[in-house]
Amino acid sequence: MPSPALALGIDIGGTKMAVAVVDVPGAIRVRETLATEAEQGFPRAVERLTAAAERLLQSCGCRPDQLSGIGIGCAGPVDPRRGLINNPYTLTGWNACDIVSPLHARFGRPVYLENDADAAALGECFAGAGSGFSPVVMLTFGTGIGGSVIVDGQIYRGANGEHPELGHIPISRDGPLCYCGIRGCLESLASGAAIGNAGHNGGFQDARHVFAAARQQQAAAQAIVARAVDAAATAAWTICHTFLPQRLILGGGMMDDQFDLFAQAMKERLSTATQFSRDGVSITRAALGNDAGVIGAASIPLRHASLDQSTRPDQTAGQPT
Amino acid sequence: MPSPALALGIDIGGTKMAVAVVDVPGAIRVRETLATEAEQGFPRAVERLTAAAERLLQSCGCRPDQLSGIGIGCAGPVDPRRGLINNPYTLTGWNACDIVSPLHARFGRPVYLENDADAAALGECFAGAGSGFSPVVMLTFGTGIGGSVIVDGQIYRGANGEHPELGHIPISRDGPLCYCGIRGCLESLASGAAIGNAGHNGGFQDARHVFAAARQQQAAAQAIVARAVDAAATAAWTICHTFLPQRLILGGGMMDDQFDLFAQAMKERLSTATQFSRDGVSITRAALGNDAGVIGAASIPLRHASLDQSTRPDQTAGQPT
Repeated sequence: MPSPALALGIDIGGTKMAVAVVDVPGAIRVRETLATEAEQGFPRAVERLTAAAERLLQSCGCRPDQLSGIGIGCAGPVDPRRGLINNPYTLTGWNACDIVSPLHARFGRPVYLENDADAAALGECFAGAGSGFSPVVMLTFGTGIGGSVIVDGQIYRGANGEHPELGHIPISRDGPLCYCGIRGCLESLASGAAIGNAGHNGGFQDARHVFAAARQQQAAAQAIVARAVDAAATAAWTICHTFLPQRLILGGGMMDDQFDLFAQAMKERLSTATQFSRDGVSITRAALGNDAGVIGAASIPLRHASLDQSTRPDQTAGQPT
Repeated sequence: MPSPALALGIDIGGTKMAVAVVDVPGAIRVRETLATEAEQGFPRAVERLTAAAERLLQSCGCRPDQLSGIGIGCAGPVDPRRGLINNPYTLTGWNACDIVSPLHARFGRPVYLENDADAAALGECFAGAGSGFSPVVMLTFGTGIGGSVIVDGQIYRGANGEHPELGHIPISRDGPLCYCGIRGCLESLASGAAIGNAGHNGGFQDARHVFAAARQQQAAAQAIVARAVDAAATAAWTICHTFLPQRLILGGGMMDDQFDLFAQAMKERLSTATQFSRDGVSITRAALGNDAGVIGAASIPLRHASLDQSTRPDQTAGQPT
């Protein structure tokens, strides 16, 4: 009998992969971290993930048929409906790679694929900063800016099942040109890459150096940081007048040190808003760090199992929410 | 036995009220239009609405217990969860007015209250330009700019059950100050009032005169119209990177004459977008005109009845979706 209380979570990034056995309510029982080594080929990565999963299941005395299922969060683009990874950009050579079928064939349980931003947001909603809130919007500030919207525990999907691209909200028409197609989107102004690029002109090595120089009152660095923070505040206004989340979660490496700065600017901007109940919206830091991805990936089968355990027949693989 | 195939729709605006018997798939069987006369008091308006509803039911040979229910769309603010109209702004004296209880007491059927923008969008999704699409975003260009988001036939709701305020998406920081709390939101640049206000400085009477002068190549009017159209194009970019609707519907009086101008600018702006599948999104004019409100209001009980006819016990009044 499958248990609704355990699932396998897999998080695939450009450099590292994590595999974990996750329970309800969202604790990691055991885990392994592997180098991705995408250039060794997709089949090799699947072999290594499968072997790691088998070791983990053995170490915690769990048979595959006791799993509620397997969830995968992967650096996108991915196609959740067909279970395909289409990301030759950061996973060299991985185009149209079906990760669902081999894992389903090996473990015999339902397998779900989502992109990593959605998986991280699901993790925060399952066991972190978004738990008990809906809707939840999570913005992840790293090299780029990712976003995800979770409504009643489910990923918000638009046309073609695609998810929102909150990094590309327009902010200021005189900003840098972005690969998204316009000038001055959020990512072009407030991402780690944007801050780093703006800093290069002033002789700063990267975003971290820009933030450090701004703290030391260097005017050029302060101007770059002010532009980024202002862009994030405008994005918060947009998010509150569109998705109107009960909770806005800020995550990603940049928020380790800069959360207070960004959150404060967002709160100040929203303090003048009259068209929604501001006390219904809170802004908070992500709680799960790098674990959000595996926990969120595992939460997909865990949630399916707990919702539907008694009413749904055993599923075929690869059919996500 | 209640029929799932007929419902009463009520649309309450600042000057007019409409009452109609609506069927599946969304045709108006009979209707009456009344002056609102809000200043005569809320109880008097309820009496007149009730009398009109009784006349309509009699004229089409429908007993109250044959209705699937009653839906009301009302100029907001309204509180759908408690069935209250809180709009002393355009309905003089109507604050905390419970419209659900008296109609439920009189007709014995479920009664639902929504704001008029949401009701109109539900109408377009039930029997108009949004039928068969999801998600659907509807923007209504009138004196102000209203917005509504419908996902799988249901109104998207954020924190506190409140709905998106798409008229107040930030566009340009150097725009006019809006009552929403910032400068340069969509409504402050592209609404009928905004275009009219900008036109006053150039000696134009109202938005209609500005559009007419722009067609005659008058530079001042052209600049005002260009600013409005550009703002709408930016808003379309925001909407496609947040809600990513399968269909974006443009409605409201301004779109009777200006749809092509605005839709073309939106499509041009979106033509450079790389982060979603553009062929999955279409932009279209609202199809139901002023009937969208009553049809959409009636669609709420019609949809409940058709979804739940056999599984749900008779409902208490005033519990919306």
